[in-house]
Amino acid sequence: MAQHEDVSATVAELISQIGADAVVTDPGLIDNYRWDWTRSRLAGKPLAVARPASAEGVQAAVRWAAAHRIPIVPRGAGSGLSGGSCAVEGCLLLSLDRMRSIEIDLATRTAVVEPGALNAEVKAAAAEHGLWYPPDPSSFEICSIGGNVATNAGGLCCVKYGVTTDYVLGLDVVLADGTLVQLGGQRIKDVAGLSLTKLFVGSEGTLGIVTRAILRLIPAKPPAATLVGYFPTVSAAARAVVEVGATLRPSMMELMDARSIGCVEDYQPMGLDRDAGAMLIAQSDAPGEACGAEIAIMEEAFRTAGAKETFVTTDPDEGELFLASRRAAFPAVERKGSLMLEDVGVPIPRLPELLEGIEQIAERHQVEIPTVAHAGDGNTHPIVVYDGTDADAEARAARAFDEVMGLAIGLGGTITGEHGIGRLKRGPLAQQLGPDVMALTHKIKSALDPDGILNPGAGF
Amino acid sequence: MAQHEDVSATVAELISQIGADAVVTDPGLIDNYRWDWTRSRLAGKPLAVARPASAEGVQAAVRWAAAHRIPIVPRGAGSGLSGGSCAVEGCLLLSLDRMRSIEIDLATRTAVVEPGALNAEVKAAAAEHGLWYPPDPSSFEICSIGGNVATNAGGLCCVKYGVTTDYVLGLDVVLADGTLVQLGGQRIKDVAGLSLTKLFVGSEGTLGIVTRAILRLIPAKPPAATLVGYFPTVSAAARAVVEVGATLRPSMMELMDARSIGCVEDYQPMGLDRDAGAMLIAQSDAPGEACGAEIAIMEEAFRTAGAKETFVTTDPDEGELFLASRRAAFPAVERKGSLMLEDVGVPIPRLPELLEGIEQIAERHQVEIPTVAHAGDGNTHPIVVYDGTDADAEARAARAFDEVMGLAIGLGGTITGEHGIGRLKRGPLAQQLGPDVMALTHKIKSALDPDGILNPGAGF
Repeated sequence: MAQHEDVSATVAELISQIGADAVVTDPGLIDNYRWDWTRSRLAGKPLAVARPASAEGVQAAVRWAAAHRIPIVPRGAGSGLSGGSCAVEGCLLLSLDRMRSIEIDLATRTAVVEPGALNAEVKAAAAEHGLWYPPDPSSFEICSIGGNVATNAGGLCCVKYGVTTDYVLGLDVVLADGTLVQLGGQRIKDVAGLSLTKLFVGSEGTLGIVTRAILRLIPAKPPAATLVGYFPTVSAAARAVVEVGATLRPSMMELMDARSIGCVEDYQPMGLDRDAGAMLIAQSDAPGEACGAEIAIMEEAFRTAGAKETFVTTDPDEGELFLASRRAAFPAVERKGSLMLEDVGVPIPRLPELLEGIEQIAERHQVEIPTVAHAGDGNTHPIVVYDGTDADAEARAARAFDEVMGLAIGLGGTITGEHGIGRLKRGPLAQQLGPDVMALTHKIKSALDPDGILNPGAGF
Repeated sequence: MAQHEDVSATVAELISQIGADAVVTDPGLIDNYRWDWTRSRLAGKPLAVARPASAEGVQAAVRWAAAHRIPIVPRGAGSGLSGGSCAVEGCLLLSLDRMRSIEIDLATRTAVVEPGALNAEVKAAAAEHGLWYPPDPSSFEICSIGGNVATNAGGLCCVKYGVTTDYVLGLDVVLADGTLVQLGGQRIKDVAGLSLTKLFVGSEGTLGIVTRAILRLIPAKPPAATLVGYFPTVSAAARAVVEVGATLRPSMMELMDARSIGCVEDYQPMGLDRDAGAMLIAQSDAPGEACGAEIAIMEEAFRTAGAKETFVTTDPDEGELFLASRRAAFPAVERKGSLMLEDVGVPIPRLPELLEGIEQIAERHQVEIPTVAHAGDGNTHPIVVYDGTDADAEARAARAFDEVMGLAIGLGGTITGEHGIGRLKRGPLAQQLGPDVMALTHKIKSALDPDGILNPGAGF
């Protein structure tokens, strides 16, 4: 949109089309929708926030934005970790937070869900019927299904149960011109036409706005036994992960390094071993005797890799305590300073090299990089901590952040395993994908959104 | 390519670029590559057949075809059931049958596979290391991985273990201009950029030529117990499938109707109950006691749905006998006349309506439609049998074939669950997807293959 003087008339047009209750124009209230978890200082100020209550409302808002060439930034619950839903200056911030219906269809074992529904709400609705929606980002209590679809979110159980795309059977998507397409459906197998449903999962709002998702549910999660091991070094723990991964498929395999253990103990003492170089928390939810067998195999692998101490429990509450310590890592580290959060992944066998390399990068740049990881699928979260008031410290942190991504790419890995590229990781993406894949990506983007109004500056 | 007189010079250019040993020009030999399993009489005659031995050879062949605007029809093992690899007149038939290396990487539990490798060869290579590549089309002994990727092939175990796309971690793809892109890799989780790997799976050679696939392997298939049930009607069997599907996830759930049982018994008597309206073959491979528990739950569901007789075995050989009867259905029916093979799928709860509707369509058009099904995921294979020498019978068969697809669409289903659209099912595709999804599909096709040289007339 070109002229400043037209703004109020243009916004009035939006209001006339989707209703005053669905448009936020108050500058103070708009600020609530500008940022995701990254609080990026690059976030612009939206022209308006639309909060439609229906797919038709989304279509009308998109048509309005398309007519005026106003960029659209879609937003679920604002828990994104890569800046993908941070506003761009003068955009329409399209919030899906009012669209949150959830219907469970027992016969097809699916959930038909609007994008603003929280992951935890879908899990709870499924659980009422003895069913389970597996994808479990650490933020599952506060993140939306729409955001999960946009980033193809992962989580802790994904090592055994897969990620979001594995559970999306169908999507309703509003395209850049306001057309609503229905992709897939409540059928398990369908190869008619291109795999468009899969293309939209993980597209970070750059190809269309999801207004409904059909999610596959599976029988309730079986009870799990938990194995905890303390290792002298992260390398030793990583070797145990590699060994287990070549043998069986645990239902969870999380890693905390010494620094993240220390942060958690500083934050809320849980009796973790501060002297350990790393801790692994593994689970098996195999039925009956198979569970104990899997735990025994993993414990043996832990010992062989050099575990100093191991601990097994079949008590779910006791297991949950260890998981709580793992989940506390982010808030615990957050208290230590400003953060740059990584999400790098590598093929499992390269995990020891990745973790050793991260330690060296931290040392070289004199920054702290506590690391937690969904180790079982090679996906790590090194957290670069720095003093936000010290420009030199911030510069060193930024260099370390970039070097960790470069390291992962060099090991045949990825700069993002589950958080998405958003607006923070576009720089190194071309290094990972190369010019030909970038060109292919831009061809698809141009074909679907020729005016580039859908989440510009995000995703790629 | 326009002028007939240029043909030999043009083919000579191809030979100079990829070598005489990689180009078939003998008209008699070319005929071996013209058809897939459908033997479609619409198949054209290729200008030449290229059989490159490397990705570089594929690139050179594609560049040659692009320069001359010659359509390319890719082909794996020619076992396709929808005509997707049937030649078009004057095309370059690009056979991947010489590219069949298989490398198993134990540490990442992946198979790095060239497209001409057979599914059974990948399974066997994995099994040498105690690993398993699950997707198991009935044709697994003769179909290629490239074809499996092109159609996103399913199979018998998919009801529990998923389809091809669930196991593809990475692809090398030669694009329409000859560029080779590497998508994904040996990492389990990766959300950097668009989900391009997933887009190419199931694209039936219309967007690019796969030259390498990185496939996820899982631990060896556990032993399974088998439950067989005979039902008075297909509806009763279908109701049992719905009931089981709402309760647990069997590792197999196959259906044969009375007509397909009869055909198999005529072909090679196996002692199946010819008087039954339908038979279900279910398996559980849950570990330990859970296996028996799952079988008991399913047996109860069978009885409740009206099974006349049930039979349980934990002897793998005995279980395999029943599966052999299921796999014999195609050759058995083939002896009865000419075939039109359906692949329709519906949401599980609509299975009874679908199967009843198929019986009514058969009656209405006075054709035989024996039906087998991967019932557990709602995917059925009604086989329209007719006298190929009787024009009227063929016309009635064609009407029945179309009506079965229309019925599936009307039930919220799909015209193809695992075989692909190919060249035989393009007509009803638009009815299933609707004009907006078709337009979206064509936008992506045009962006990636503006001259339309990649498998024209197939896929959509």
